[in-house]
Amino acid sequence: MIEIFNKFESKVRSYSRVFPRVFTRAEREFMWDDNGNQYLDFFSGAGSLNYGHNNPILKDKLLSHIKNNQVTQSLDLHTTAKASFLQSLNNTILAPRNLQYKVQFTGPTGTNAVEAAFKIARSVTGRKNIVAFTNGFHGMTLGSLAATGNDYYRSAAGVSLSNLSHLPYDGYLGEAIDTTRYIEKLLTDPGSGLDLPAAVIVEAIQGEGGCNAASVKWLRNLQALCKRHNILVIVDDIQAGCGRSGDFFSFEAAGIEPDIIAMSKSISGYGLPMAVVLMKPELDQWKPGQHNGTFRGNNMAFVTAEAAINHYWSDTAFANQIKRKGEYIGQRLRDIASCYDAGISTKGRGMFRGLNCGSGEIAKQVNRVAFDNQLILETCGAHDEVVKIFCPLTISDESLKAGMDIIESAVKLVMNQRDPAEIVLN
Amino acid sequence: MIEIFNKFESKVRSYSRVFPRVFTRAEREFMWDDNGNQYLDFFSGAGSLNYGHNNPILKDKLLSHIKNNQVTQSLDLHTTAKASFLQSLNNTILAPRNLQYKVQFTGPTGTNAVEAAFKIARSVTGRKNIVAFTNGFHGMTLGSLAATGNDYYRSAAGVSLSNLSHLPYDGYLGEAIDTTRYIEKLLTDPGSGLDLPAAVIVEAIQGEGGCNAASVKWLRNLQALCKRHNILVIVDDIQAGCGRSGDFFSFEAAGIEPDIIAMSKSISGYGLPMAVVLMKPELDQWKPGQHNGTFRGNNMAFVTAEAAINHYWSDTAFANQIKRKGEYIGQRLRDIASCYDAGISTKGRGMFRGLNCGSGEIAKQVNRVAFDNQLILETCGAHDEVVKIFCPLTISDESLKAGMDIIESAVKLVMNQRDPAEIVLN
Amino acid sequence: MIEIFNKFESKVRSYSRVFPRVFTRAEREFMWDDNGNQYLDFFSGAGSLNYGHNNPILKDKLLSHIKNNQVTQSLDLHTTAKASFLQSLNNTILAPRNLQYKVQFTGPTGTNAVEAAFKIARSVTGRKNIVAFTNGFHGMTLGSLAATGNDYYRSAAGVSLSNLSHLPYDGYLGEAIDTTRYIEKLLTDPGSGLDLPAAVIVEAIQGEGGCNAASVKWLRNLQALCKRHNILVIVDDIQAGCGRSGDFFSFEAAGIEPDIIAMSKSISGYGLPMAVVLMKPELDQWKPGQHNGTFRGNNMAFVTAEAAINHYWSDTAFANQIKRKGEYIGQRLRDIASCYDAGISTKGRGMFRGLNCGSGEIAKQVNRVAFDNQLILETCGAHDEVVKIFCPLTISDESLKAGMDIIESAVKLVMNQRDPAEIVLN
Amino acid sequence: MIEIFNKFESKVRSYSRVFPRVFTRAEREFMWDDNGNQYLDFFSGAGSLNYGHNNPILKDKLLSHIKNNQVTQSLDLHTTAKASFLQSLNNTILAPRNLQYKVQFTGPTGTNAVEAAFKIARSVTGRKNIVAFTNGFHGMTLGSLAATGNDYYRSAAGVSLSNLSHLPYDGYLGEAIDTTRYIEKLLTDPGSGLDLPAAVIVEAIQGEGGCNAASVKWLRNLQALCKRHNILVIVDDIQAGCGRSGDFFSFEAAGIEPDIIAMSKSISGYGLPMAVVLMKPELDQWKPGQHNGTFRGNNMAFVTAEAAINHYWSDTAFANQIKRKGEYIGQRLRDIASCYDAGISTKGRGMFRGLNCGSGEIAKQVNRVAFDNQLILETCGAHDEVVKIFCPLTISDESLKAGMDIIESAVKLVMNQRDPAEIVLN
Repeated sequence: MIEIFNKFESKVRSYSRVFPRVFTRAEREFMWDDNGNQYLDFFSGAGSLNYGHNNPILKDKLLSHIKNNQVTQSLDLHTTAKASFLQSLNNTILAPRNLQYKVQFTGPTGTNAVEAAFKIARSVTGRKNIVAFTNGFHGMTLGSLAATGNDYYRSAAGVSLSNLSHLPYDGYLGEAIDTTRYIEKLLTDPGSGLDLPAAVIVEAIQGEGGCNAASVKWLRNLQALCKRHNILVIVDDIQAGCGRSGDFFSFEAAGIEPDIIAMSKSISGYGLPMAVVLMKPELDQWKPGQHNGTFRGNNMAFVTAEAAINHYWSDTAFANQIKRKGEYIGQRLRDIASCYDAGISTKGRGMFRGLNCGSGEIAKQVNRVAFDNQLILETCGAHDEVVKIFCPLTISDESLKAGMDIIESAVKLVMNQRDPAEIVLN
Repeated sequence: MIEIFNKFESKVRSYSRVFPRVFTRAEREFMWDDNGNQYLDFFSGAGSLNYGHNNPILKDKLLSHIKNNQVTQSLDLHTTAKASFLQSLNNTILAPRNLQYKVQFTGPTGTNAVEAAFKIARSVTGRKNIVAFTNGFHGMTLGSLAATGNDYYRSAAGVSLSNLSHLPYDGYLGEAIDTTRYIEKLLTDPGSGLDLPAAVIVEAIQGEGGCNAASVKWLRNLQALCKRHNILVIVDDIQAGCGRSGDFFSFEAAGIEPDIIAMSKSISGYGLPMAVVLMKPELDQWKPGQHNGTFRGNNMAFVTAEAAINHYWSDTAFANQIKRKGEYIGQRLRDIASCYDAGISTKGRGMFRGLNCGSGEIAKQVNRVAFDNQLILETCGAHDEVVKIFCPLTISDESLKAGMDIIESAVKLVMNQRDPAEIVLN
Repeated sequence: MIEIFNKFESKVRSYSRVFPRVFTRAEREFMWDDNGNQYLDFFSGAGSLNYGHNNPILKDKLLSHIKNNQVTQSLDLHTTAKASFLQSLNNTILAPRNLQYKVQFTGPTGTNAVEAAFKIARSVTGRKNIVAFTNGFHGMTLGSLAATGNDYYRSAAGVSLSNLSHLPYDGYLGEAIDTTRYIEKLLTDPGSGLDLPAAVIVEAIQGEGGCNAASVKWLRNLQALCKRHNILVIVDDIQAGCGRSGDFFSFEAAGIEPDIIAMSKSISGYGLPMAVVLMKPELDQWKPGQHNGTFRGNNMAFVTAEAAINHYWSDTAFANQIKRKGEYIGQRLRDIASCYDAGISTKGRGMFRGLNCGSGEIAKQVNRVAFDNQLILETCGAHDEVVKIFCPLTISDESLKAGMDIIESAVKLVMNQRDPAEIVLN
Repeated sequence: MIEIFNKFESKVRSYSRVFPRVFTRAEREFMWDDNGNQYLDFFSGAGSLNYGHNNPILKDKLLSHIKNNQVTQSLDLHTTAKASFLQSLNNTILAPRNLQYKVQFTGPTGTNAVEAAFKIARSVTGRKNIVAFTNGFHGMTLGSLAATGNDYYRSAAGVSLSNLSHLPYDGYLGEAIDTTRYIEKLLTDPGSGLDLPAAVIVEAIQGEGGCNAASVKWLRNLQALCKRHNILVIVDDIQAGCGRSGDFFSFEAAGIEPDIIAMSKSISGYGLPMAVVLMKPELDQWKPGQHNGTFRGNNMAFVTAEAAINHYWSDTAFANQIKRKGEYIGQRLRDIASCYDAGISTKGRGMFRGLNCGSGEIAKQVNRVAFDNQLILETCGAHDEVVKIFCPLTISDESLKAGMDIIESAVKLVMNQRDPAEIVLN
């Protein structure tokens, strides 16, 4: 069946090349291909399946919604599904955290949310520049692509990407240097060439960039710096949000309060396209429809999103569970890394973890061996050098152990080969 | 319940202001609000519901897919649902029309598709400029927004929009002038200041621009001009495609063959977010993942999209029906216009029709009166001066007549007032 | 000696290729090469020598200034030379015309003046876009190059040129269409894609563009249009100013009053680099030094500039003389054109005239034949199809007749050849 | 007489505000105002008068050239003056240093030269980005302004400045960090967001930036880095060149060999506007006239430029003299700085020196006191905190001592005040 894709689909397809199977069915942390093979999924739809595949709690609500001919279209209208989502988001997530944000539904992808965030920030401040960080990833449309660091994506734009300054993320200049001090210097030096930005956009944990977790201290310094210079803080919580870090928002551990938050991926909880921008009320200076789009009101997604919020976030049990599993993953990764002299290290926090293999070639081989053992794993990092551990947050302890065992064995197999190029995959 | 939206949702919401009801349920051409009122929908989810609300043929497939735990996430993977869609698209739509295109699944919104189309065009040609047309609408992200003519949207960007030249659409310089001759002059004059474009992007029928239907001759001249100068033709068929014009593609009547086609809105058939770019095989020079995104593989949408294609487009019956209904709408509109001395005229073709009321104020009043009579209608045009007739293609003849009757009465009511500002809405 | 240039000078040199001689000496309308050959100059230093080569009136003042060790450096300081120039410019040029402008001395080239004009216009209005016209030429630095229409120059930028919209100049859409009406339509249509410009920049007579003289009516309509929309009018009088048109300013015949005027070339009168921007006093919102440069105060140029103004513009005699000679040139050109069935036509006004030969090849041959007869002539126009008649305004009647005779003969020789490619130059 | 300037000249004038006198006459290191007061000039026309005011050696040649009616216009033609300059530049400057460059004459200002350099670099490499450094100054036109760090100038552009990345100059991240290592990291990290640049543009000694002299090691590392990544090195030697550093080129001490050199200011030697771009022969891929301009061939400037080169640079005597005087200045500045506990430090090398007073207010007061004592001094640095010592290279030892004495006294006077705001200028 794969020839259909070769014949009709563009060369741009990517994940399907890494996992060259035709998938048919999925439940919880498992997927099955059309030959009936079962796979353990440590990738979670690139972070869109924090609650697992076809989560039955969400599924029931979704089926009922569809069956009853409730509004399923995605236009920006008032619907009961949207009202319920807004109410739950506020009551269960925002109010208990003393957060007050206005919710903007954008086109249902992360990049649309980032583009909207940039428009708000630029319009409200009257400034054009935005600061993004080295190895940040924020999307593929021209506005968000300018903020994305990776040259592979940038070079496809075909035009210059402007009004964006890339500055060093936490740790980029070495452990000893707090990069916010460099940014402070640039901001206070009228000759630095850094145009005063409308906003900084930051991931508390960088996904594509290699599971780079910013320290609590750095995030706080960044927020303080921005406050001093009247710069808005946009947190891109598209991948790190919705519990991945151990809290609902990735920045909670740092105790900061962003001016704008972009969310997508697991916000719907079921893999359905949805994206929101949360902004402090005083920033909501939009005119009606000024950032429009046909699919801003994905009602099916609202239904599953509300169910996910209510089920998983009404108390702290789920968050505690994530933290516990995250610690387990961290320990297993540290154990693996400790077996090798050097060049292998651990990354990330919560259930957003990675194993830096030092080279893209090694990481790729690890993932291939793992895939041969029915474990789905992605790489990340600028050189694809990090094996990314990104299982559903709802994974069973048994499956989690099984997956980590496969990774441990795969690393051993790959590292024990004298010449990495000669590794024979069975 | 509306206070929830006022309290929590951003001011950017738009359609919900025009139709200030909370909708709960929908079937075919009807919607119901939370007070049980029924509305006849002549807006069709901004063109995303060509096959009506919760179309039962599509719904059955969708429910079965979800119930059976088939892959519902949206990641770019090989799945059976995607394979079936690709096969049906080719067998039912492309092959019978002697068209050969590669299919790119982009982030599931029109603007993502347009951004992808621009990247292809720029990368393949090595040029930066793109020509768009006056009153064109192509999306809200920075790349597509540059191609969108409307100042209301453009001004929200906060930065300059570049690498785009706006040139006059068919009829813009008056009936007597074929604007492709002006474009030809600019292209052959090395001093014109028009940088040789990678592509033109054109809507065969402009939606937001006011139901402006380009003539067959103009579209042919445009394609010929582009061929002579080695410029790619991108048709933005996001709103006018999927049968709206009377054919599956809006450009079929002109017999042209675009190099790239952007589709979204009704491609899924059920209001589910989905977008595709069709490109001539030689243009498919993408590297894997170079335009990526989490929701490029909306499997639920593939299921309904395939069902829609197979059910409606396997023979010419549906197309004929659209043409027949389109003629009926056209005749009704001409009859309405003929009642008034001047200032009211008809626009569009197929079931993509409009009544130009000469002023935004009048059109708004017509729509308000219609809404008071439970008919959902939008305006379009640079001054919102056009009442847009955009019912589901599957509408019953009875409903269609009922809707047109309401429009006729509403126009009469509004036009009979001496002073439009004094119209009292009941 | 020419091998020195071949060996050491960049390939970018241009005029020296068209006139491959080494020039040593010059007086009035004559130049001499290092073999003692005399040339009649109908090019006038690309318009920088309206008062002829080494004009003795100016020369005396210059020599005296240098000899006496007056300030010869070019820094922006208060000097007696600058004060005298400002006084004379005001008393002799501005005041008698009821014009009130502030004078900005920019870096001493036309492009620097245009860049300054754009900065003023953008800063004062807070807008970014500027409208320039097809076949306009405004300079080579990135800001002014964006306004220059010619692709040959634009393509050398290596980056996209933005914040500029090129619209059709007078006559561009044919005699029947007043292009200001098209511009009006774009400005009043919120969907046109034309961002409201800070300014339009226009040459009353386009030089590089092909001696295209805008009509009085069009210039007036343009100014009225700009007033209605609160857009600034910048006249680029770099080439057409300083008497070339028959008046000191090229726009005087139209009776318009630009908001900003850019001048250079013949303003110093002696071929010395100098440039000024004249702006209405309310536009002078510069902060000190915000557009700076080392050579903004070319005192030697001030000396000759003042001498030229005082000598030539204290009464109307010189202007009348230009008009008379301009009429003579026009008549001679019409006579030449009338000898040929078609394809040859006349351009321009005042002593800014051209003969449109229909093709760059023919025009080049005419100029070559003329150069063989010791007449220096340039071509202009997007296809280099126009023989440009640009002699010093001070030329003697005898020389003027001699030059026109050579042109007449050269055209005859070239046109009488059956096959233009076969013309043998003696 | 100053009211003439207030009345007619734009507010943009700057140096004339700092030195509010009307200057009439100048010789060597002295200027006189219209009241006959004599001033010692430690500013040298912002670096355009390295050989002093009205240098008699240059003046004689200039007078003779003008008197004899040699070509004085500035068009890009072959002239004997240009040939002589090219020959001398090659024989006296380039060949003895084993340098081989093609010479491009651009519009006669530094910014035009920088714009030309950027065009070459972008066109030859096919890349768009250019790296400039913090506190760099490269000009005021849109292309060069993008490379200029100072916000005061940048904010006047009115549009976004793009295709430029500003990176930290030598010492910017503290003594311990070689900023070329940071740049190396950005270049080797595909996720850094730094688009591979066509070129870096660097001043070996930053003028406006505050007399910041890059170390020999840093310049070498920069060149090595650029070689590894195939990036062109452009040295902006507009202010630091022509002997200011102690060598003809400022980069000679570092032993590097730039791909492109931009020169202006003192290249003519007499304060006459002139600019050149030197480029390695393989980079000379210009098409004729693709970067044109009316004043590219300032023959008067060629005459004085040639005279200066021949007189001052035929042997090493002049360079040695500069070095000796430079050491003297350095010693005097160190002595001054050593009198104060902290906050005062010395900057620069050769005769390009500064005294960092720690605040713009103090530096301004020092300069005011000095001016009251007839010494002309400028400030530089992002906060105008550096008193810039920039006397003619030809200054007599006696004048040099006199000037330094005035500076010493002025610093003492200012620093001895308890409250700097209370300093009373006599």
